[in-house]
Formats: sequence, structure tokens, C-alpha cells
Amino acid sequence: MQMRELSRASGVPVATVKYYLREGLLPAGTPTSATRATYDDSHLQRLRLIRALAEVGQLRLETVRTILTAVDGGGTLHETVGAAHTALAPLGPASPQADEAVDRLLRRRRWRVHQDSSNRHALAVAFEALDKVGFEVVDTTLDAYADAALTVATVDVETVPTDSAEHAVEHVVVGTVLFEPLLLALRRLAQEHLSSRRLGRPGRPVRTARSTRG
Amino acid sequence: MQMRELSRASGVPVATVKYYLREGLLPAGTPTSATRATYDDSHLQRLRLIRALAEVGQLRLETVRTILTAVDGGGTLHETVGAAHTALAPLGPASPQADEAVDRLLRRRRWRVHQDSSNRHALAVAFEALDKVGFEVVDTTLDAYADAALTVATVDVETVPTDSAEHAVEHVVVGTVLFEPLLLALRRLAQEHLSSRRLGRPGRPVRTARSTRG
Repeated sequence: MQMRELSRASGVPVATVKYYLREGLLPAGTPTSATRATYDDSHLQRLRLIRALAEVGQLRLETVRTILTAVDGGGTLHETVGAAHTALAPLGPASPQADEAVDRLLRRRRWRVHQDSSNRHALAVAFEALDKVGFEVVDTTLDAYADAALTVATVDVETVPTDSAEHAVEHVVVGTVLFEPLLLALRRLAQEHLSSRRLGRPGRPVRTARSTRG
Repeated sequence: MQMRELSRASGVPVATVKYYLREGLLPAGTPTSATRATYDDSHLQRLRLIRALAEVGQLRLETVRTILTAVDGGGTLHETVGAAHTALAPLGPASPQADEAVDRLLRRRRWRVHQDSSNRHALAVAFEALDKVGFEVVDTTLDAYADAALTVATVDVETVPTDSAEHAVEHVVVGTVLFEPLLLALRRLAQEHLSSRRLGRPGRPVRTARSTRG
């Protein structure tokens, strides 16, 4: 297909497609003249993937590039997913107390996780931020979250396709990122549902005291 | 306390504290001379909140401002949480098919959610992104995610403090944002745990075929 058709099918403007080509995120098409090229389904699929990661995942272009490099890299499944998770993990150090809280949780739940996993670090950073604003996370809360995480991860891991390794890697990386907004939106909808029951019907809002701050 | 002490206690550099003061995110201190002021615990608490939202929530400063305005605004609980969720909701339109899929899910689960809720839209955008990269989300997957969301939302809503309305609002807004990285980190840890069981021990990685792309 021509550039114009590729743009229409993917929903990505022509100028943006050209930008992705220049940046090397999208492989070049097959030249048909000095100024034209044709593109195939692999270009369309890749373009949809870039768009989804950048728009829904709200990932910066460098992070998108890191993930695409991992998907194309031909490494092991663990290496690829690890590289993607590292690209996605939040920055900043965590305290020894937060690291210890993560270790304690993983031991209690008997979860097998690599000692240097970036996911451990992501959890420690999350603990630390909650601690800094004075949120104490008690074990019963943590267990409810861990139960929920295990529920969704079970489905995630079971639905990884086994027909081809490349397909499997792409599924895991994209699924990790694109299912995150889904899970977060469902959590907020569930909160809205439950708090409308607890706080009364819409239209009978609970008044709050005026802030004494500022 | 002095500026220097405020900086040390919050972990926010002095230059950044001054920036937040200039931007009006942090209320001014009590002047003690032409060039000095003192700050109290409310400044420290607010500074920790800003830091947590900006660093862990990875929110842009304008979004942080919107949330702080909502917390300070003295509106109803529903208004405040709604304003925060709107500030956090992803941009971009969703297709009528995606909106219909959201309606179908909410009817099936009997969740009471406002027709104009930004959370509905967030879910529709997430559906659309998955659809664009060819991920079909079957009902059993969706139900596992909805069950998990309900599990965590139940704890979220139950732990809202009732001692003061301002405290309650702050808890809901901050809890929504700061527990998201916690939930996502736990999901990735659970995936790592389960896939290490499914794919074998670390150190015996599963080789993938080289990519044929690019």
C-alpha cells in the first residue's frame, strides 16, 4: 500500500508516519521510484503498535524505541520482557526500609522473583511514596492487592500465545502495557460504583468542610 | 522551620521548593524578615504530597495543580474526586464500539456509574487501543480484571477515613493515584512469579525465534 493508505488504515497522520520512518521506529518500505515506496501489513501492524504504546501507554518515544528494540532483538522471552519492564520502571532510589517491605511481602506470598528484578524496585518506590505522604499500607490491604494482582496475572500468563515465540514476546510486552490502563480504569469504575453506594445517590452529594489550608 | 529544614525534611531541593512557591503550588510561609519566612507542618505535608504526585504518579505539574485545587476547593467529595479523575483521564476520543463495550460490561456487572463519568471514557480508550493492535479481550478475561478491580476498590473505599471531610478527600485522591503504581508493580511481580513457573527456572531461558521484521 501507499503511504497515504498506510496513514488512513492506522489512523496516524502522514507527517507522523514520516517522522517515525526518519526516527527508525518504522522500517523503510520497498522503493517503487525515487520518491515513493510501498508498505505491507507488517508496517501497518508496527504503526498500530507504536500508536498504542505512545497514546494509551502514554510512553515517551525513547521508551517506545526501547520496547521495539527488545521485541525485534531475538533475545529470550525473559530478557525481552525484562528489558521492557526496565524501560517502564519508575526512576529514583528507594529506602532500605521499602526494599525490606518488598522482601517481606514476597516471602510471605512465596512469590518467586529475581533478586535484581526491576519490578521489585518499582514496588519499593511505590511503597516509599505512600510512606512519604503518611499512608500506612497494612498487611490486609496489601494482601487484597496481591490477590487481585495474582488474579489478573494468571489470566495474562495463560493467554500468552504459543504459536510463535515472536508473537509471544510481542503479546507479553504489549499486554503488560496496554492492560494497565484497562485495570486502572476498572479500579476507578469499581470505586465509583462502591462509593456511590456508600455515600448515597448522585444528586445527594456529601458536603465537605472548607479547606483550612493555603 | 526554615526553608533549608523544610527542604531536608521533605527531600525536595531548595531550588525546587522555591519553584513550587513561585508557581503557587505551595502556600507562602510566614515572613520573619524581608527575605526570610518560616514554614510549618502543613507546608511539609503539602510538599510531600506534591513530590509523591509528581515523582511516583509521574504527573505533569498542571495535573498536580488541578488535583491540589480540587483538594483545597471545599467542593463535595464526588466533585473533588471527579475533578481529579478528569485531570488524570487519558485524552483522545473512543469509538462508538468501544463505548458500547463499556456499557455492556457495566450492565453485566451491575455497576452503578455516572453516564458522563471520565472513568467510562478511560475504559473505552483502553478497549480501543487493545482493539487497534488486534488484542481481543474476551469476557472471561474481562471478568477476571473486573473481579480484581472490585477486590482492591472494596479495600480502597472501606479505608477512607471519616474523621474529617478534607482528610477523606485527600485520602481518596492521593490513594487513587499512589496505589496505582503499587497495583501495577504487584501485577508485574505476579506475572514474573507465574511465568517463571510456566517457562522454567531463571538461568534456563526459553529461546525465541529471531524477528523477521525490520
